Amino acid sequence: MSVAGEIDQVMQKAQVAFLAYKKCSLEERANFMREIGEELANIRADVVPLSMEEAHLSNDRMDGELNRTIYQLNNYAKNAAEGSWLDVRINKGVPNEDTDIRKMMVPLGPVVVFGASNFPFAYSTAGGDTACAFAAGCPVVVKGHPAHIRTSEMVGNAIQKAAQKCDMPEHIFQHVSNDSFDAGQELVKHSLTKAVGFTGSLGGGRALFDLANQRENPIPVFSEMGSVNPVFLMPDKLQESTEDIALMYADSITQSVGQFCTNPGLIFGIEGSDLEEFISTLSEKIKRKLPESMLHDGIAKAFLEKKKKALAQQGVEIEAVAEEKEVSGKGMPTIASTTGELFLKNKTLHQEVFGPYSLVIKCKDLEQMQEIIAQLEGQLTSTLMATEKDVADCPEILERVQEICGRLIMNGVPTGVTVCTAMHHGGPYPATTDSRFTSVGADGIRRFARPLCYQNFSNLLLPDELKNENPLGIWRKVNDVMTKDVITS
Amino acid sequence: MSVAGEIDQVMQKAQVAFLAYKKCSLEERANFMREIGEELANIRADVVPLSMEEAHLSNDRMDGELNRTIYQLNNYAKNAAEGSWLDVRINKGVPNEDTDIRKMMVPLGPVVVFGASNFPFAYSTAGGDTACAFAAGCPVVVKGHPAHIRTSEMVGNAIQKAAQKCDMPEHIFQHVSNDSFDAGQELVKHSLTKAVGFTGSLGGGRALFDLANQRENPIPVFSEMGSVNPVFLMPDKLQESTEDIALMYADSITQSVGQFCTNPGLIFGIEGSDLEEFISTLSEKIKRKLPESMLHDGIAKAFLEKKKKALAQQGVEIEAVAEEKEVSGKGMPTIASTTGELFLKNKTLHQEVFGPYSLVIKCKDLEQMQEIIAQLEGQLTSTLMATEKDVADCPEILERVQEICGRLIMNGVPTGVTVCTAMHHGGPYPATTDSRFTSVGADGIRRFARPLCYQNFSNLLLPDELKNENPLGIWRKVNDVMTKDVITS
Repeated sequence: MSVAGEIDQVMQKAQVAFLAYKKCSLEERANFMREIGEELANIRADVVPLSMEEAHLSNDRMDGELNRTIYQLNNYAKNAAEGSWLDVRINKGVPNEDTDIRKMMVPLGPVVVFGASNFPFAYSTAGGDTACAFAAGCPVVVKGHPAHIRTSEMVGNAIQKAAQKCDMPEHIFQHVSNDSFDAGQELVKHSLTKAVGFTGSLGGGRALFDLANQRENPIPVFSEMGSVNPVFLMPDKLQESTEDIALMYADSITQSVGQFCTNPGLIFGIEGSDLEEFISTLSEKIKRKLPESMLHDGIAKAFLEKKKKALAQQGVEIEAVAEEKEVSGKGMPTIASTTGELFLKNKTLHQEVFGPYSLVIKCKDLEQMQEIIAQLEGQLTSTLMATEKDVADCPEILERVQEICGRLIMNGVPTGVTVCTAMHHGGPYPATTDSRFTSVGADGIRRFARPLCYQNFSNLLLPDELKNENPLGIWRKVNDVMTKDVITS
Repeated sequence: MSVAGEIDQVMQKAQVAFLAYKKCSLEERANFMREIGEELANIRADVVPLSMEEAHLSNDRMDGELNRTIYQLNNYAKNAAEGSWLDVRINKGVPNEDTDIRKMMVPLGPVVVFGASNFPFAYSTAGGDTACAFAAGCPVVVKGHPAHIRTSEMVGNAIQKAAQKCDMPEHIFQHVSNDSFDAGQELVKHSLTKAVGFTGSLGGGRALFDLANQRENPIPVFSEMGSVNPVFLMPDKLQESTEDIALMYADSITQSVGQFCTNPGLIFGIEGSDLEEFISTLSEKIKRKLPESMLHDGIAKAFLEKKKKALAQQGVEIEAVAEEKEVSGKGMPTIASTTGELFLKNKTLHQEVFGPYSLVIKCKDLEQMQEIIAQLEGQLTSTLMATEKDVADCPEILERVQEICGRLIMNGVPTGVTVCTAMHHGGPYPATTDSRFTSVGADGIRRFARPLCYQNFSNLLLPDELKNENPLGIWRKVNDVMTKDVITS
């Protein structure tokens, strides 16, 4: 069968599953998600070693990531059932006597998920996008990542098992193992595909976005494509905590071989002795970091090439390289530096080098730092290392940095994305393809739902979420007031 | 100066205004919006006659539309100040002890608005898109519609006056009177433009959407592009109220010369004597309707051409045409009919004929009606004329019709879009370019805002919306619970 024919069968099945799954209650969806979590816990002893083998990550990392994945499923299940994401609005008798208009979120339809190479569990087969789609009421088709396809299949089987246990519609979840470029294209182009979630490179994420927008009927694509996550060392804070900051960042830069989309790739400070001391302490630590295996050969090769290109730019100095002997496939932690002036002139230095590499930029003064912020691209995160005095002395930095990112960290590191409802993992392009949505936290459900409005319906025919008696006990906005009350009139 | 140079100046000024306006409080934004409403009321005696002259619409219609526009500004202002649209989420001490993560919606940046030809007030210069953008904290650049450019300029001056009275940043609102295609293109392509609102044709809306997605940094475009708003006459209801339904629809089809994006363009029934009686009563009413001037010559010409094309399709019968003599520029109310079988085979019949025209489709049975629903494009609205017995006899119709529209009306007409929070004016493509958003109701504000997350900030440095003491008294989700409480720990 042709690839197009194969994908058509998959999507036809997904559509049948959709028409059944959308009728399941919020509680049924939540139970299914919790059951997936239990099935993942059941296969821990097999799937953790397999993921370690495929993705070259440590036992601790993969065990922790599995926990995170299970936590996500449970947290999004709880938030899905709580129902406030449905944005129920009811206008009855207002603004006019005969007004009876009610709306709520309904699922978009079948969602296609492209998993990340760097998170075999948490942003892959049973990861955040899949959890959000299930919560919204959408069936999921996952295109397994070729770098950990066996892990993906094993996780997929756990989802299938949970679906059977919970009596979910057949084909609510499908795993496409065909790793051809064509298969991905056909999935995005198929008329029954209603949304896409992607985590990966700018090139890949943009290609899917373009493909989806060129369809006769365009569909939303949420691509999370990473960023360089600039860090701004403000003078008072740097003077106060030079060593602490250097130690904190040596760890952040090299955590999981720098293979996080929140890895701090650019560190800005004001030239002078404090910054030199920071660089020197950071360098000492980086030299002693051990190079570790990267996720796969393609990523290791890309790291080498991009780093080489960055280091070859005029005025870029190598500050530190891990002292261990270089071994093919392992990422050598590296720190380089340049000046604010050269950084402003050279857009190559603004680009992500995915891996354990950071560039320290010595700015002439705070004014130049502001000028640089105005020229940076959209970012998932930005970080300010600052005392209250720093902010009072130059409020413009805090002001401007908010324009370029989705999450702003004060006196911390950008790595480590806590799973919670207040988290925002998104940001202006090219961090993502739509800054209005997140891929971490229960608000990610919104990517896969749309409002549907019911006008002049009898109470009997309304969905439970909209009925007068509020049988689900959810928060609703009735005549512009948030309430859980029943509607009596 | 070149068009590109002219637009660059406009957008640079809009960006300066943005950096100032985003600091204004919710209450300051709301006051500004209310003041615009007052200024519009002040120019009523001048602007209503001017709009009547430019758009060929009646005094009652334009006076009512001005009221609607003022109501919109006030209602969105109230909802903006109420603050629940900010989607404040706070996680403190949960899930981990050291968690302090808070997020809220912030404005995207300068918004470009392309007004509608058919609503010189309510969807134009000071219309819904502009009101939503101001509420979100975004400055607005309006490209005035050439069909009512003088009305647009007069309304623009009223906005300027309100801005001055409220001490708003200069250039918070700018009016571009250059009606060239180039000017529109440059506005959408400019790097400082952060979102676009459009109301109009499929061709125009899609062109702007494509242009925005082809940018180096794509931006969201919400194009509302109309639809054919199918109406389904279920057998029991039709038998019960044949005449009432016919009279109701004769008015709906011809209201404002059929120039509403919610005009009922397709009416489906089951072949037989009840449907014949409905057609006959509808036809009698339509014949006696007076043809009225259309908005402008371009629309009148398009109506003639599209109607001619539709009527020329095989198996399409003219049922009724207004009996008054045809006059150039006036829209002749027209009803035609065809069979379900021919409708299924001919996609030309699915297309919108913008003006006072509807096609009645005689379906063989309810099964054929379902088959047709599955093939219809995305719609702003669908309407079911049905008794509870009708729904019980064939629940699949109610089920399926929800998949294709943004608003579902029971036993009413789709024309008349009530301004209220529960309203949804949107729908699957090609009704709009993104089914997840609305252009009517305060939730339309969301189109122009994105989440921004603050991690580990001291209470002092947080925006008021996120401070422990909740100084604005707004609804917030704290550790996954909706509350207005202060945070004490």
